[in-house]
Amino acid sequence: MKTQLDCLPCFLNMALNGIRKACPGQDDVHEKVIREWAKGFAEADLSESPPSIAGRFFRMTAVHIGDVDIFKDQKDEANKRVIELLPKISDTVHNSEDPLLAAMGVSIIGNYMDCALMDKFDWEVELEDLEQDIDRKLFADFMERVRAAKSLLILGDNAGEIGLDTIFAKLLRAEGINVTYAVRGSNILNDATVVDAEFVGMTDICEVVTSGVDTPGTVLNRCSVDFRERLKSAPVVLSKGQGNFESLWGVMPDVFYAFKVKCPVVARLTAHPMKTSLFCREN
Amino acid sequence: MKTQLDCLPCFLNMALNGIRKACPGQDDVHEKVIREWAKGFAEADLSESPPSIAGRFFRMTAVHIGDVDIFKDQKDEANKRVIELLPKISDTVHNSEDPLLAAMGVSIIGNYMDCALMDKFDWEVELEDLEQDIDRKLFADFMERVRAAKSLLILGDNAGEIGLDTIFAKLLRAEGINVTYAVRGSNILNDATVVDAEFVGMTDICEVVTSGVDTPGTVLNRCSVDFRERLKSAPVVLSKGQGNFESLWGVMPDVFYAFKVKCPVVARLTAHPMKTSLFCREN
Repeated sequence: MKTQLDCLPCFLNMALNGIRKACPGQDDVHEKVIREWAKGFAEADLSESPPSIAGRFFRMTAVHIGDVDIFKDQKDEANKRVIELLPKISDTVHNSEDPLLAAMGVSIIGNYMDCALMDKFDWEVELEDLEQDIDRKLFADFMERVRAAKSLLILGDNAGEIGLDTIFAKLLRAEGINVTYAVRGSNILNDATVVDAEFVGMTDICEVVTSGVDTPGTVLNRCSVDFRERLKSAPVVLSKGQGNFESLWGVMPDVFYAFKVKCPVVARLTAHPMKTSLFCREN
Repeated sequence: MKTQLDCLPCFLNMALNGIRKACPGQDDVHEKVIREWAKGFAEADLSESPPSIAGRFFRMTAVHIGDVDIFKDQKDEANKRVIELLPKISDTVHNSEDPLLAAMGVSIIGNYMDCALMDKFDWEVELEDLEQDIDRKLFADFMERVRAAKSLLILGDNAGEIGLDTIFAKLLRAEGINVTYAVRGSNILNDATVVDAEFVGMTDICEVVTSGVDTPGTVLNRCSVDFRERLKSAPVVLSKGQGNFESLWGVMPDVFYAFKVKCPVVARLTAHPMKTSLFCREN
């Protein structure tokens, strides 16, 4: 999808949040970075996707702060909390009527919550609501294709969330399906990298690869050549999270998307209200 | 107060909202304006107050859209709705234990709500909460000074709100106090001008003057010479709304402020949480 004007104030808030975390108290650096981003908006190519532009701007910011993993603490905390919660959530999923659908639901909740929110969820109630949201027919089509191909490439999104994705990956593996899980190539926002995949044990369940991107979404021209090949030849692709949706929607056909609608621009584009748990595909 | 980095994304949202209202569907104009604002951020003097910067940027925008009163419909609707509600609200104020304090409470609620919100308020409950918020000792000091001077200059803020301010103005007039009510000199956002003062009948209650400003707050160097004189010589000044607070706090001593805390920057500065009904003075 293209970047909308509404994305610009949102980018600026993201930059401010990030730079304050990266170098607390250094007001002069914060100001310099925010002015740089604002100046960048004046010339930005809005036909690029939001993750593509955001990634470019974060690279520009790295000049001031170096290659810092700004959200490391937040990611570690999210991963840790998910691991604590996993046994109970996993039980709920396995005891539900349709464990695969429930696992997909959990996976989508994972996209929605940061670690601060996690404790406040009543998972069983939440799951019931979620499963109602999800297009069951499309999910059945998806599973049919995955089973026929015996293969699935999952494009991961955030830390924390990746821990919840292990439940779905394990269920598929138990069916003999060959799962590959892709993470970002560099630290960007709170997105999952190989470090997070190892931490939550995804690397023990399936093959974990990096897309090579340094953007908060799978921006094709930032992917490694290897990964682009892999993406092209994957019989079924599941894209997790709004960042991957923003990067691939309108760009790569035939991808299945699973995410929470988190902003008004995506709500307009998908014609689904904010907070919807969306499982969809481009027609 | 100075403009904070947090104000910039907020400005951008304000510009986007305004320009879309001013010329709906003209995406090329929207984009041009937003890019211009963003570029302006790169060079803005952040020691200026937020209303000063916002005013400057809206003047820049007028090149594209002319001297349009962007929020006219919204202001008319707010004024109309307030006039419909006034008899009931006025009764509540007059029947309360301390009508002047209640009128001040109503006046502050007026700063908070747009017309869409107005119908949802239970005014009596709301007033009870509000009066608890307001610093009664400071309000008593304020009234003592007003009564001693037999004079008050009120700096008005939004349309709609100005209708609710008539209750307070009437109560003061009934005590023989000479009230002057100042409105903006030009159309800016949903701020009250002479047109709104006439519409809600403020001109029948007290002298209405314009500050001359074309900014969403009483920015001193945008005031007319006459008004600056008036402001300087006024024995007591009551500043309504967050925009006037942003313009005058740290700039003009001895002003009484009455407004709802509406943004995190002002919440930090005043050390009062968002949504507080604040009646305060700079010490």
